[in-house]
Amino acid sequence: MPKIGIVDTTFSRVDMAKHAIDTIRSLASDVEIVRYTVPGIKDIPVAAKKLIDEEGCDIVVTFGWVGKEQVDKYSYLAMSIGLTMVQILTNRHVIDVTVHEDEAEDERKLYYIAVDRARKHARNAVELLFKGGLALRKYAGKGLRQGYRDVGPIRE
Amino acid sequence: MPKIGIVDTTFSRVDMAKHAIDTIRSLASDVEIVRYTVPGIKDIPVAAKKLIDEEGCDIVVTFGWVGKEQVDKYSYLAMSIGLTMVQILTNRHVIDVTVHEDEAEDERKLYYIAVDRARKHARNAVELLFKGGLALRKYAGKGLRQGYRDVGPIRE
Amino acid sequence: MPKIGIVDTTFSRVDMAKHAIDTIRSLASDVEIVRYTVPGIKDIPVAAKKLIDEEGCDIVVTFGWVGKEQVDKYSYLAMSIGLTMVQILTNRHVIDVTVHEDEAEDERKLYYIAVDRARKHARNAVELLFKGGLALRKYAGKGLRQGYRDVGPIRE
Amino acid sequence: MPKIGIVDTTFSRVDMAKHAIDTIRSLASDVEIVRYTVPGIKDIPVAAKKLIDEEGCDIVVTFGWVGKEQVDKYSYLAMSIGLTMVQILTNRHVIDVTVHEDEAEDERKLYYIAVDRARKHARNAVELLFKGGLALRKYAGKGLRQGYRDVGPIRE
Amino acid sequence: MPKIGIVDTTFSRVDMAKHAIDTIRSLASDVEIVRYTVPGIKDIPVAAKKLIDEEGCDIVVTFGWVGKEQVDKYSYLAMSIGLTMVQILTNRHVIDVTVHEDEAEDERKLYYIAVDRARKHARNAVELLFKGGLALRKYAGKGLRQGYRDVGPIRE
Repeated sequence: MPKIGIVDTTFSRVDMAKHAIDTIRSLASDVEIVRYTVPGIKDIPVAAKKLIDEEGCDIVVTFGWVGKEQVDKYSYLAMSIGLTMVQILTNRHVIDVTVHEDEAEDERKLYYIAVDRARKHARNAVELLFKGGLALRKYAGKGLRQGYRDVGPIRE
Repeated sequence: MPKIGIVDTTFSRVDMAKHAIDTIRSLASDVEIVRYTVPGIKDIPVAAKKLIDEEGCDIVVTFGWVGKEQVDKYSYLAMSIGLTMVQILTNRHVIDVTVHEDEAEDERKLYYIAVDRARKHARNAVELLFKGGLALRKYAGKGLRQGYRDVGPIRE
Repeated sequence: MPKIGIVDTTFSRVDMAKHAIDTIRSLASDVEIVRYTVPGIKDIPVAAKKLIDEEGCDIVVTFGWVGKEQVDKYSYLAMSIGLTMVQILTNRHVIDVTVHEDEAEDERKLYYIAVDRARKHARNAVELLFKGGLALRKYAGKGLRQGYRDVGPIRE
Repeated sequence: MPKIGIVDTTFSRVDMAKHAIDTIRSLASDVEIVRYTVPGIKDIPVAAKKLIDEEGCDIVVTFGWVGKEQVDKYSYLAMSIGLTMVQILTNRHVIDVTVHEDEAEDERKLYYIAVDRARKHARNAVELLFKGGLALRKYAGKGLRQGYRDVGPIRE
Repeated sequence: MPKIGIVDTTFSRVDMAKHAIDTIRSLASDVEIVRYTVPGIKDIPVAAKKLIDEEGCDIVVTFGWVGKEQVDKYSYLAMSIGLTMVQILTNRHVIDVTVHEDEAEDERKLYYIAVDRARKHARNAVELLFKGGLALRKYAGKGLRQGYRDVGPIRE
């Protein structure tokens, strides 16, 4: 049975993993889900690596929440480089779902962004897991967005 | 038969891969093309790595689309570092075609940049694939540009 | 007996490790603690790596102190990338406790932030050490903060 | 016979490699030179790696040209990190000669900077190749500059 | 006999290595010192790596000098990431002594910073070499500074 890893944080202000797991369950009943919670975004890469190496996950989805300060953005950069390295070293996808606190002034808006992004990327993960690099071909260049409405392709 | 990998995203607003494949086909009938579509730029490096490791691609061309925000630029940086690592670890070229949404105000202009860049780098990839490091010698220092008109060399 | 590594610096203006060790001792009497002091933050990653490789530590907590200048932030970024690599290469958590001198104007405030952050992350480390990725599940998405009061989850 | 690798780009507006090769030839008749031309700076690290791994080069000199925009600087950073990794993984020097388009308003000035930098670093490469870490000892702390006049040491 | 590696540059305007070596000699007569001079900071990481791998150095001290421009800071970042990787891959400390030209307007002040920083970090290296992670324990959290006067710990 294919295995999806989920990494989330106690720093986040929205339980994005819950929504993602809900989406995964609705799309595929035949997957095992392993969830791993860490304190903050800089703890995410090793958790993803452990889920792949030690739990045998085929794909991982991570849920980060990033503050507004410049140093938070540097932490985001370090995490992103780390997640890229995890993927390169394991040849497994780690789909990163990150919400930045300065994406919206309004908490309600931020909540919507987080849930929408989590659900859509959960769907992406399921697609990649079951159908690989061909799965998303039909959406190539289509201007899809997660957390926002799709913007669509530029007309020729 | 030599194999070219293509990685593109659903985030992009232009189907650059289509144009690149068209160019490759017009230049070389004897290459196999494998295409891999991922959600966004941070998913590109591992896809390129998988095309090299698992599909045996000799060279890869990637098509990224980057938003206007500072965090998008950090994601671009993480992807760029990742693509560099993929190349170093495999000794294979990964030619990166990236369009930044703030390169042009006008959508039509952005579309032109994307297609021109995709086609020119597809040509670069074919040259490198068939003739290696000597292929582009005649253009060394010539101020070539992709997405824009060539600026040419500075006159002595 | 499980082993926790502690890395701190002479650059720091607060002995955070002392408070972290105090917290660890209060939570778990059955752990060995190995402490390693280095000059500054850029010396931290290798110390963490050595504690894992040479001392057999199961988890490491690091205590950094970062100046106000832009170059200090770049050093923070280099350290963060380094710590991520240490974790990825060893599959061990390295919980990073960093205080930035510009987090507070007032020294007393800065002291409070440092001690609170050290104690809370020491607790996180103990939780992860003994209960793994399930330990923090109940706090996922709860908006926990270290150095500050928890902000809590966003209400749906 | 020792082997020097040369990597340059079609993006550059000055054929720096020509001047560097000229300098190398004037200093050492007994070296083999292998030249590799790539599209832009992000293609440089893997070319340097291939020259070392596949062509057996003992040292490599690379010639990059960087645009004025912030994203160009991030590409420069990714290339620089990549070149550092190539060196660390191979234990070979890769001397990087980079010209930034915003170093001078005037094209003539930029041309002078590029040629001067290329020639001086070609000399550095020859010195390191034949005499190793002792070669440049006499200039340690002397405030040498490439592309500009030497500024000299600070007087005690 | 333990071996200390020294890496410095021709770009630097102060011969920091001379002062560091003087300090090392005054503290420990029983160490071998190997010195390696490179052009600039981006050449430092591989030199440190070679001193460890090829010369068997137990610890390395590096002396960098960084210009005032933003691209100089990116080079500093690339070097710092590189030095971190060298340390992680070898499990050896590389103590980095960097002076930024914009740390002081006055050349005399800059000279003082460079020498003070070089001497104090040379002492740190000797301490770590002979006594390991316990050597600096007594200064943990004490607010030590190199290049400036110690600021001391924050009083509780």
